[in-house]
Amino acid sequence: MIARGSAPDHHLQGLVQELTSVLGERCATSAADRDHHGHGESYHPTYPPDAVCYARSTDEVAAIVMLCRRHDAPVIPYGAGTSLEGHVAALRGGICIDLSQMGGILAVHPEDLDVTVQAGVTRQQLNAHLRDTGLFFPVDPGADATLGGMAATRASGTNAVRYGTMRDNVLALTVVLADGTIIRTGTRARKSSAGYDLTRLFVGSEGTLGIITEVTLRLYGIPEAVSAAVCSFSDVGSAVRTAIESIQAGVPVARVELLDDLCMRAINAYNGMSYPEAPTLFFEFHGTPRGVEEQAATVGEIAAANGGGHWQWASSAEERNRLWHARHNLHYAQLALRPGAKSWGTDACVPLSQLATCISDIRRYTEAASFPVTTLGHVGDGNFHLGFIIDTNNPAEVREAEALNVRLVQRAIELGGTCTGEHGVGYGKSRFLRAEHGEGAVEVMRLLKAALDPQGIMNPGKVLPGESTPVDGLSRNLDGA
Amino acid sequence: MIARGSAPDHHLQGLVQELTSVLGERCATSAADRDHHGHGESYHPTYPPDAVCYARSTDEVAAIVMLCRRHDAPVIPYGAGTSLEGHVAALRGGICIDLSQMGGILAVHPEDLDVTVQAGVTRQQLNAHLRDTGLFFPVDPGADATLGGMAATRASGTNAVRYGTMRDNVLALTVVLADGTIIRTGTRARKSSAGYDLTRLFVGSEGTLGIITEVTLRLYGIPEAVSAAVCSFSDVGSAVRTAIESIQAGVPVARVELLDDLCMRAINAYNGMSYPEAPTLFFEFHGTPRGVEEQAATVGEIAAANGGGHWQWASSAEERNRLWHARHNLHYAQLALRPGAKSWGTDACVPLSQLATCISDIRRYTEAASFPVTTLGHVGDGNFHLGFIIDTNNPAEVREAEALNVRLVQRAIELGGTCTGEHGVGYGKSRFLRAEHGEGAVEVMRLLKAALDPQGIMNPGKVLPGESTPVDGLSRNLDGA
Repeated sequence: MIARGSAPDHHLQGLVQELTSVLGERCATSAADRDHHGHGESYHPTYPPDAVCYARSTDEVAAIVMLCRRHDAPVIPYGAGTSLEGHVAALRGGICIDLSQMGGILAVHPEDLDVTVQAGVTRQQLNAHLRDTGLFFPVDPGADATLGGMAATRASGTNAVRYGTMRDNVLALTVVLADGTIIRTGTRARKSSAGYDLTRLFVGSEGTLGIITEVTLRLYGIPEAVSAAVCSFSDVGSAVRTAIESIQAGVPVARVELLDDLCMRAINAYNGMSYPEAPTLFFEFHGTPRGVEEQAATVGEIAAANGGGHWQWASSAEERNRLWHARHNLHYAQLALRPGAKSWGTDACVPLSQLATCISDIRRYTEAASFPVTTLGHVGDGNFHLGFIIDTNNPAEVREAEALNVRLVQRAIELGGTCTGEHGVGYGKSRFLRAEHGEGAVEVMRLLKAALDPQGIMNPGKVLPGESTPVDGLSRNLDGA
Repeated sequence: MIARGSAPDHHLQGLVQELTSVLGERCATSAADRDHHGHGESYHPTYPPDAVCYARSTDEVAAIVMLCRRHDAPVIPYGAGTSLEGHVAALRGGICIDLSQMGGILAVHPEDLDVTVQAGVTRQQLNAHLRDTGLFFPVDPGADATLGGMAATRASGTNAVRYGTMRDNVLALTVVLADGTIIRTGTRARKSSAGYDLTRLFVGSEGTLGIITEVTLRLYGIPEAVSAAVCSFSDVGSAVRTAIESIQAGVPVARVELLDDLCMRAINAYNGMSYPEAPTLFFEFHGTPRGVEEQAATVGEIAAANGGGHWQWASSAEERNRLWHARHNLHYAQLALRPGAKSWGTDACVPLSQLATCISDIRRYTEAASFPVTTLGHVGDGNFHLGFIIDTNNPAEVREAEALNVRLVQRAIELGGTCTGEHGVGYGKSRFLRAEHGEGAVEVMRLLKAALDPQGIMNPGKVLPGESTPVDGLSRNLDGA
């Protein structure tokens, strides 16, 4: 991983002094702190900030933002550092606000099925806290991300097919604006038509319009019965068709995950498991005991009609945890396929009817790739990922991955889909926004950004295209690719 | 109903001539046309526009908006005219764009469970069109509103407890902006994290940021089994508790509607029915035959524990239609309680745990009202309406209703709720936004409005508070009430 801009910006020394006078040791400038905060979990290079401020309250975040504003310094929010498109890269230096010490679970309302947390609470911390209430928070992007980060990037994951994404599950936010104003974007009422939907405006805005410091989330009762199963197929198309037909039949599956033969090989090797190394669907069903039985029976018939076999059931919590743990650590299992390599995860999402076409079209190109490529996805939503297992020090491989990614994005957009189903834009995907949304819609986004952040200090270079995207070999224009 | 500003604005004569040269007879200036378009279905007085343009395409809407912009004239979109908070009142005159002739169902994708319609299609027209596909669109505000209007006001209704509101069921929009630019706000992909959520920004913006001309909606499979039931209780509190406990138990009820004894009396009289004239819950369950059975059994136990009795089941489609038809024409049944009167429907929504408190607190005041007051609601969402059946020509009654409404809104906000669960803001509720959202959040809304509509021509005087709210006896400040 290449560290860039490692020398702090001298213009910001005064700012760092002021921040230190407020935060003491919680304003850190060591190379280790700065480098750690300059990257997420992807192939993107490191861009360290000039300093890292560990905030502990909304008021502290507001104070830091106001100081940064006075010094015209970029502000980059940071949660668990699990983002994949360079969201936390300090492209122009500036101050990283690390929210991980804002770990308070502020109010659980079991009778209203909601909870309010500080932005630094992770989803696993929340679910551990909720354990005795009979409730859980379902959105599960795999990584143990912070809930503030998940809201800021509109995350989703394996459960979204049943429970929705962060868009659907955030009731309200506390946000610090670019001028330090603190706002609350909604109430705990389940629905409202009282004015513009500020909650949804900030969900997915990736710190470019404001910094999310508190999140009010919907909760769900832990289902009475849960059952999981793994079923393998002779080819990816049959597995995808099974997922599509299950959704179209109205089965409320809680999760339906596709893993191709290479994923299964990686999982077996990494976890010492012995699944058939063939395209596979991982299912989970939630409901009453009879309801779960009905769902499984319907899906079983659909799978059989598509040639599915080798059903393996996991009904005990231990078996299910083992199964989903293997699915969740697939990122690391993939990397183990090629020691020293990094993973580049693509993220297309298309209308369900186009999913089989999109996957088979792109796999025609990836078959000839010079590096391993896995195919996996949340296929009930039409969302899938290719995993490029590449040597990022090999420019030819990076260029090849880049070209495949552009080809995939173009195909997804042609098929009525999106360049990113759940990973977000960061700066890795911003150049695709015009192709997806059109110039007019991107101009609206630009007007919103200018209205709420006229100085352009909030996570600059992210989301919106054309704002001095860094030249690092990955930034060719979509049209020119 | 008082018609105001009936004389057309002379400054707009040139504009009307230009519009007529484009639209011919579809630019109407008759008093009948103008008065009809100056009001919705509520107690608010009529404010007629200077002319009504019947648009037939997105391009025509864009052309009309560009002409209005050049003449600095207000533009007010109009669907079916069923809104309740003065959304369509031409407070400052201007041009009403009637979208009801934009009735095209542009694309049904049964395999993707989505449809794209022009804004003027009503929900009943859409469901009639879908009949043979096995799919339906669930959001049901009672009135046969246009889908464009429902998106613009973030409508919901009886089904929202299971299927969500327009916020959850709009996938994408075509919008004409204040400068005539046409944008598309999303794709047909089920989820996306590609930039700011423009779809949700325009949903609920009530024509103040742009005019919605096409809507892409989620569809659902018609459930295999549907069952409805009516159950009466000795008091409103017991009925509300039954609804709350059913939701908290995780029963996926499709509808759960509260009607108090006066509502039931109105329904019996209006429809020649003979339900017990006691607080009543109307339920509907959707699912597999066994699933529906399980749901009904669970709710039955909860109702019995709360003293519920007189279960009447409606399992055939005819019986169900009769039942829900009676619920849906409650507006007219209420009016028949007092011939010549109008209905003022309040619209509070609070966290579920506060619903019983909110209803019983406000009913303590309405018991002494000098006019009939009904209580009804979508209680599974924490949303309920009081129906004030008033003589709008009697200023004392109007003032009394006004004071009760303010008291209700204040109590709902104190209890963590919203001033409007589903009716929207229009100009009737704009003065409550600061109390609900705080000054900072309202200022963000104002910045968004200024960014997208710098001339202030898009449905002026709506949503945002303080923009010359008309003085008509209903506009006292919340703090001063």
